[in-house]
Amino acid sequence: MTQKYPSVLLENAVNELASLPGVGRKTALRLALYMLRRDEGYTENFASALLALRKEVKYCQVCHNICDDEICSICADPQRDHSTVCVVENIKEVMAIENTGQFRGVYHVLGGIISPMDGIGPGDLQIDSLVQRVANEEVKEIVLALSTTMEGDTTNFFIYRKLSPYNVKITVIARGVSIGDEIEYADEITLGRSIVNRTSFNDSIKI
Amino acid sequence: MTQKYPSVLLENAVNELASLPGVGRKTALRLALYMLRRDEGYTENFASALLALRKEVKYCQVCHNICDDEICSICADPQRDHSTVCVVENIKEVMAIENTGQFRGVYHVLGGIISPMDGIGPGDLQIDSLVQRVANEEVKEIVLALSTTMEGDTTNFFIYRKLSPYNVKITVIARGVSIGDEIEYADEITLGRSIVNRTSFNDSIKI
Repeated sequence: MTQKYPSVLLENAVNELASLPGVGRKTALRLALYMLRRDEGYTENFASALLALRKEVKYCQVCHNICDDEICSICADPQRDHSTVCVVENIKEVMAIENTGQFRGVYHVLGGIISPMDGIGPGDLQIDSLVQRVANEEVKEIVLALSTTMEGDTTNFFIYRKLSPYNVKITVIARGVSIGDEIEYADEITLGRSIVNRTSFNDSIKI
Repeated sequence: MTQKYPSVLLENAVNELASLPGVGRKTALRLALYMLRRDEGYTENFASALLALRKEVKYCQVCHNICDDEICSICADPQRDHSTVCVVENIKEVMAIENTGQFRGVYHVLGGIISPMDGIGPGDLQIDSLVQRVANEEVKEIVLALSTTMEGDTTNFFIYRKLSPYNVKITVIARGVSIGDEIEYADEITLGRSIVNRTSFNDSIKI
């Protein structure tokens, strides 16, 4: 049954809010009524922050990370190791890896992974610009940090093939049992991989 | 640990989205990135729908329901029974009752319920205007449809006292075991109330 709204303005606002991923019509109504309870400045700030993001945001010309200038703060930082480039799917992964504080290199944001089901081919991603970086800059190591899915593996392999003419070390982030996980409950592929790729105990206690 | 954002614009947008009730910072980031993936027109429509709602929405001068004109479509409808006024807390309850299709009267939206803990007294609600309606219009019945909480009961009682000088029938919506509920699992207060307020079987099969 379709809900009847007492106001067209309310209905439009609910429609827009409900178009966000993960927001249903009940939540959208609750959010719209919340905005009506707050003062006008609240909604103005809300709307202008979203518009500013959409219209003014830039992408780093080197790594394609989101940023406010031509070059992002990571690529512009002389303290970072510019010879180690971590390839990620999206900026969320950049943020996740930055939060670990364990990576001092720079990034390359592909903007997605190869996924024929979603119509995303290599040409839609920043793979050519990655090859350019390897060809023109002094890149010693490419760290592949994509999802452990069929799409991620396909993309890894595609990049590996594209970079094979160049003298660059290609690594992939470690797959294994998560910290805090009980061995008993780890799935067998992960557990198998973590046994095959076991590391020296000496190395593992450095972190 | 505070998340570092690669862009101030992104951080502002995430802050605004995360200020909505029930939206955390992870969800806010997901929504902001979703907007970046959609075209500019999407965010423009989104923002303008919210601004239009906040700036242009009106409240019905009779029942205080949200509406686009001076008088809401329910109050303006000559087909409705204007002598039966259902008192509700908020416009969400108007929509819920309208969806049942069981009520042909009109509404009166209080804008909240008396709640000293939240600093809401009778003066903050549309109680005086309800009394005015009863005094000036030909209202035969007031149906109290507030929450079954201490605050709801307090508000019911307050309205009951305010309206006692007037010749108007005051009713309260039926409390009882929900349709589809098993008697065994109903709480004892509800079950007790539904036994005390039992209705003629003949009446109950009309709906």
